[in-house]
Amino acid sequence: MLNILPKLLAEFIGTCFLVMIVVGSGIMAESLSSDQLSILLANTIATGAGLTALIWIFINISGAHFNPCVSLVMYLKKEMEIKEFISFILFQFTGGLLGVILANTMFGLDSLQISENYRGGSNIYLGEFIATFGLLITILGVRKLNISAVAPAVGLYISAGYWFTSSTSFANPAVTLARGFTNTFTGIDPQFIIAFIVFQVLGAIMAMVFMKYLQED
Amino acid sequence: MLNILPKLLAEFIGTCFLVMIVVGSGIMAESLSSDQLSILLANTIATGAGLTALIWIFINISGAHFNPCVSLVMYLKKEMEIKEFISFILFQFTGGLLGVILANTMFGLDSLQISENYRGGSNIYLGEFIATFGLLITILGVRKLNISAVAPAVGLYISAGYWFTSSTSFANPAVTLARGFTNTFTGIDPQFIIAFIVFQVLGAIMAMVFMKYLQED
Amino acid sequence: MLNILPKLLAEFIGTCFLVMIVVGSGIMAESLSSDQLSILLANTIATGAGLTALIWIFINISGAHFNPCVSLVMYLKKEMEIKEFISFILFQFTGGLLGVILANTMFGLDSLQISENYRGGSNIYLGEFIATFGLLITILGVRKLNISAVAPAVGLYISAGYWFTSSTSFANPAVTLARGFTNTFTGIDPQFIIAFIVFQVLGAIMAMVFMKYLQED
Amino acid sequence: MLNILPKLLAEFIGTCFLVMIVVGSGIMAESLSSDQLSILLANTIATGAGLTALIWIFINISGAHFNPCVSLVMYLKKEMEIKEFISFILFQFTGGLLGVILANTMFGLDSLQISENYRGGSNIYLGEFIATFGLLITILGVRKLNISAVAPAVGLYISAGYWFTSSTSFANPAVTLARGFTNTFTGIDPQFIIAFIVFQVLGAIMAMVFMKYLQED
Repeated sequence: MLNILPKLLAEFIGTCFLVMIVVGSGIMAESLSSDQLSILLANTIATGAGLTALIWIFINISGAHFNPCVSLVMYLKKEMEIKEFISFILFQFTGGLLGVILANTMFGLDSLQISENYRGGSNIYLGEFIATFGLLITILGVRKLNISAVAPAVGLYISAGYWFTSSTSFANPAVTLARGFTNTFTGIDPQFIIAFIVFQVLGAIMAMVFMKYLQED
Repeated sequence: MLNILPKLLAEFIGTCFLVMIVVGSGIMAESLSSDQLSILLANTIATGAGLTALIWIFINISGAHFNPCVSLVMYLKKEMEIKEFISFILFQFTGGLLGVILANTMFGLDSLQISENYRGGSNIYLGEFIATFGLLITILGVRKLNISAVAPAVGLYISAGYWFTSSTSFANPAVTLARGFTNTFTGIDPQFIIAFIVFQVLGAIMAMVFMKYLQED
Repeated sequence: MLNILPKLLAEFIGTCFLVMIVVGSGIMAESLSSDQLSILLANTIATGAGLTALIWIFINISGAHFNPCVSLVMYLKKEMEIKEFISFILFQFTGGLLGVILANTMFGLDSLQISENYRGGSNIYLGEFIATFGLLITILGVRKLNISAVAPAVGLYISAGYWFTSSTSFANPAVTLARGFTNTFTGIDPQFIIAFIVFQVLGAIMAMVFMKYLQED
Repeated sequence: MLNILPKLLAEFIGTCFLVMIVVGSGIMAESLSSDQLSILLANTIATGAGLTALIWIFINISGAHFNPCVSLVMYLKKEMEIKEFISFILFQFTGGLLGVILANTMFGLDSLQISENYRGGSNIYLGEFIATFGLLITILGVRKLNISAVAPAVGLYISAGYWFTSSTSFANPAVTLARGFTNTFTGIDPQFIIAFIVFQVLGAIMAMVFMKYLQED
């Protein structure tokens, strides 16, 4: 039997770094300026760049999901078994939580905080649905073209998503939960987390169905 | 007979996302700052990044035109039949319209608006001619070098075009029409749409003739 | 005998677009903001992105030099004959001049202007020497690794060069001459053009010698 | 016996350019604006772009380490002998020193200065540990996937690192020492250099152990 632990560690460290990048770059930017556009621009560049590097590092080890929605789609497409799927998302969620703790700590803030960022509204949830639909068609489309292009495609898609969706494209339940624990630029008041995750899962499943139709022709 | 519907859906969703990215990122940027250079910079980064991802996703399904000028050139080069060409541009125009509706809606604005952005002048139309000429030589040149490089080449070319052309490089009739229906940063007063499209088509055809001479040698 | 005209047209249009991108993006940025850092940033992103696209388009047709220093090195390395070399640089210089005329015209300015930008000083000339040395080691180094990577490598190198050299890395005699004819952000008072070109040529030749030693081992 | 001098010259010139890019772009940005976020953004774009180009140029000559931590890991993995390892780091340190001298000189400043930038604190050192851990997993992970992707992966990782780590990711002992000799944006007061290097080495070794476990499965 293949040892699954290296894959789980890859998902754990990858999601941990992803959250550190998202949250940490927001803290750094907020500490240097109060201009909201510039802060989101810095947050975008750090996230797009870092996410691309992370996927390139781990794609041949675990598939570089770092995202329960991605693992869910792979499970529904029968590319993962149920036990592997559940293990993946456990390591993603805990990796994300370690990431937010390290980001807060690195910048000398309280290690665990509760965010007070208001992120509610049906138009925001529509943003998350569209954001996650787009993320999954990116992954499912580009991996059939060129496996080396998945990393920059996802990094670029998320860079665009920070700007074109009203929710700034969380598009990832593990990152969403972790962002509940930092009261800084990228935080999300925990009362909105469930709604975010519901619309993310719906967007991911819709994307899977859509691409299945397009690619089987 | 091959089923053309997956191709048409690819063009529809691709153009829809392209317009959402262009229009949505302009709305987001305008909501965060009043600095016009910063807004165009954010709009550029979102568009260049998102367009690259979209082409990588769909290039092996429909060719990832998302642009009636591109489809026209492929038709004139006898790479598409007349029925496919007409179907493509119908789905591109309607996809673009859905995109502007979703972008407006996601940000809590009226779903359909009429733009009042003045974009007239012979120097602006010269900008569109040059912009579309450049876009088509990019596509026709790079696809012969490396099909995987078409996506970043087009994304990068348009990123430059937002700055070096006086019109900010619409370079796409479906996107131009859609941008008539948002009274935000990226809108265009409908009175200028026909002139924009005329110069786009001229630029595209000129590029086809130019590259035909260069590449047949 | 091979027809050289397509190559010359590629160099002509490529250099024309390169100058339009450099000069036009500077004009656009200056029209949107007075913040000098933001203007140079916009100029950088447009130049790096556009230059990458242009090289990808034309590299298999003419080699995509767009730069007399690059053609000179290819001539000295015996990869071009003297007649081809002289033809190339003539088309590069005239293409550059058309580019600056079109950039000025597109933005509604006088088509030909004389720049008054002061760019003198031995530390600035040292900047041009280093800039062009770096450009040539990029081209000579990366083309042996992966021909498809030359375009992004050059685009990225010049993006860095706009910031790390005191001269902002003109690194190209055809572009330098053209930039004498626009009194906007990217212009150069013609009195400095000869010194710029002398140090560019010295940097290019030094890079050729350096890489010859490194690559022949 | 293979001549090692070309490799050493590659490491020397590569590290020299890397430091010129890091330090020079900071000086240029500081001269154009006082906005700290914008300065770091310009510094990021120049560093990420330039580092990618440098690795592509030299990776087939010397491996493009430009970093004693990278050479140390290659030595510990038995990919280098002790004499080569010591020679590499000597040329990296001296190349870095030439780089800071040239950067200061190009911008008309005193060639050698002592930095007074305060960069102390356990949370900052934690930043260096994480930064260098991430850099090494990037190199060790991506080189097994696609050698041509190492250059952009490292450039992108460092671009993210400038923002998500509290120390702005020096992650390189040769660059750290060199940055002690410029009293400008990217400088570091020499009293902190030893601590930075200690945490960099620890992060590098930890990354090597981690990836060895993940990749041997």
